[in-house]
Amino acid sequence: MSSSSSGHAAHPPAAPGDALADVDTPALVLDLDAFEANLAAVHGHARANGVRVRAHGKAHRCPEIACRQLAAGAVGVCCQKVGEAEGFAAAGIDDILVSNEIVGAAKLARLARLARSVRLAVCVDHPDAVTALAQACVAEGSRLDVLIEVDVGQGRCGVASVDEALALARALAAAPRLRLRGLQAYHGGAQHLRTAGERAAAFGETMRRAARVRDTLRSAGFRCEEVSGGGTGTFIHEAASGIYTEIQPGSYVLMDLDYRANQADAAAPALRQAIGVLATVMSVRDAHVVLDAGLKALALDSGPPAMRLPGWAVRTVSDEHTVVDRGPGTPALSLGARCLLDPGHCDPTMALHDWVVACRTNRVEAVWPVLPRGASR
Amino acid sequence: MSSSSSGHAAHPPAAPGDALADVDTPALVLDLDAFEANLAAVHGHARANGVRVRAHGKAHRCPEIACRQLAAGAVGVCCQKVGEAEGFAAAGIDDILVSNEIVGAAKLARLARLARSVRLAVCVDHPDAVTALAQACVAEGSRLDVLIEVDVGQGRCGVASVDEALALARALAAAPRLRLRGLQAYHGGAQHLRTAGERAAAFGETMRRAARVRDTLRSAGFRCEEVSGGGTGTFIHEAASGIYTEIQPGSYVLMDLDYRANQADAAAPALRQAIGVLATVMSVRDAHVVLDAGLKALALDSGPPAMRLPGWAVRTVSDEHTVVDRGPGTPALSLGARCLLDPGHCDPTMALHDWVVACRTNRVEAVWPVLPRGASR
Repeated sequence: MSSSSSGHAAHPPAAPGDALADVDTPALVLDLDAFEANLAAVHGHARANGVRVRAHGKAHRCPEIACRQLAAGAVGVCCQKVGEAEGFAAAGIDDILVSNEIVGAAKLARLARLARSVRLAVCVDHPDAVTALAQACVAEGSRLDVLIEVDVGQGRCGVASVDEALALARALAAAPRLRLRGLQAYHGGAQHLRTAGERAAAFGETMRRAARVRDTLRSAGFRCEEVSGGGTGTFIHEAASGIYTEIQPGSYVLMDLDYRANQADAAAPALRQAIGVLATVMSVRDAHVVLDAGLKALALDSGPPAMRLPGWAVRTVSDEHTVVDRGPGTPALSLGARCLLDPGHCDPTMALHDWVVACRTNRVEAVWPVLPRGASR
Repeated sequence: MSSSSSGHAAHPPAAPGDALADVDTPALVLDLDAFEANLAAVHGHARANGVRVRAHGKAHRCPEIACRQLAAGAVGVCCQKVGEAEGFAAAGIDDILVSNEIVGAAKLARLARLARSVRLAVCVDHPDAVTALAQACVAEGSRLDVLIEVDVGQGRCGVASVDEALALARALAAAPRLRLRGLQAYHGGAQHLRTAGERAAAFGETMRRAARVRDTLRSAGFRCEEVSGGGTGTFIHEAASGIYTEIQPGSYVLMDLDYRANQADAAAPALRQAIGVLATVMSVRDAHVVLDAGLKALALDSGPPAMRLPGWAVRTVSDEHTVVDRGPGTPALSLGARCLLDPGHCDPTMALHDWVVACRTNRVEAVWPVLPRGASR
């Protein structure tokens, strides 16, 4: 058993200076012009609203992208896993929030160890987790900031009541080496409600719940300086709320079909599709072609990908193939032609790739590593 | 840009000798008893029917699993990508069929290079591919066997007519360094038809088309010694056909919910669920728990995973979480409890993991690497 035998990412799909048409496929391609426009739009919006951006690294798992988010004004990154936090820290990012609960002695030891070298915070929603976290910090000789996660409507993680939040705040105050920083208050399901009205209504409830917990904790004498949350679908609401101190968008730099299916908010900055999966035509028939990218290059949980080239419709996606049908009057594609597919869901699609091929006007500028699959632990 | 920074698979989830309960999560767990029973069942069936097994490595991408398939009687492996073929060859497997079309000069050069050291074959369905393949073999000083892929009903890759197959056979005969070995005749869609009758009917058409091409090529004077195809859902038909010389099952050693939803064939050996994704309870509520494995550990293209523990029903799967609801009268699960999830689709689930944790009666026997994500190229 050797870690190098598992991890070795043979054959990067491109090198700086290559033409886009020469990139090996399937490859995850980032359009740098669109990426930079998205950075400017969201970070500018946050600045104008006086809210900090803590960019969500779970969307891309790419330290080079995270560094550019920091350069655009992000105060740090958030992520969901200890392995992601380690990967971002190794790239020099020194302010990281694990916006998720971490359970298990081995993971907590790694987390507490990482807290020796970076400004680190993590979420809790259970009293046993406070005890375990404190033990890990004592053992590693480190200190951790903690956010209490509040279930603000998704029905997933987070405390369901103000009383539970108060109990956790008291446990944190009594625990060694832990400090209550504030609240994690994110509603994932609200990001993809299709109309602006539905998202605004969901946010109303999110804010009501977050404010109630924050105010109760403050009334009980606890400092609760941070309220963090909000994604690409709702961040304009968190930014304008007066309650949230940090927003956590991630997909905004990449984009996908699921977010593009949202009806736009009038107040939201426009975002461009920045990633695509480059594929090669590997089989040709009169009425369809087959591309060499399938389920192992494109996540299907939020629906199939779409051809960026007009006139072609995705029929099926299987493990290593995407079959696309040619519309009436659409010019044929030749064997070997390159096509871009826009993914249904950016986060899990990114995690299928080992490299991001960063391009500008059809020329490769850089090839950036994506954290290994083991970052899921 | 360094390949080691991308590929490094930090923190293997377990070590030999660990208890299953101590494996870090999410982790891909293989039940060795079920795996070995599946090997014995399918390879025994093939032997009894006088057909060779060429195990499909695309299902697992794990050289250690492939070596055990060879030890159980497989004549070699097949795979879909040059990167997979390179990975299996590096592990010492010396008879490999790329059961797919390969397009693009860089990939063809790698393929032709690999043919210098292993018995290698690849599929074609287009005359331009024959020319490109021959050029690559001339440049690398190697020889390749070629299978003509026939569209036997899936409507994806493969020639659609006998005339196209004849034209390819003639082109192969005229091309330097290539040899026509036979036909690739696989119907992926037929594997998951739910009733035994539907699969038998689909196979009737598959066999009719494969036999017609084979007989026409033979009548025209071409040797066509191999007919290869068949998956976990239909291999009993290929094995009994008298036409197929090789079957290509892959999922049989792993299994998933999609295959288990098939109504069993009376003649088919029973197969056991051998893989599962181990997850940890990271958040607890009265009526649900949240597990720490989501879309990045479980492929959702063929539906959600299922809890192996009775009484729990998967409600939602998001990037890093699976929410499972507790049924009436079901005992609660504690924070930190371990649960196994059976995946909807084994192949893309395997590709999300960097290690296979091979266990017997809740004890880790071995930890095997999965090929890197770059094997998709």
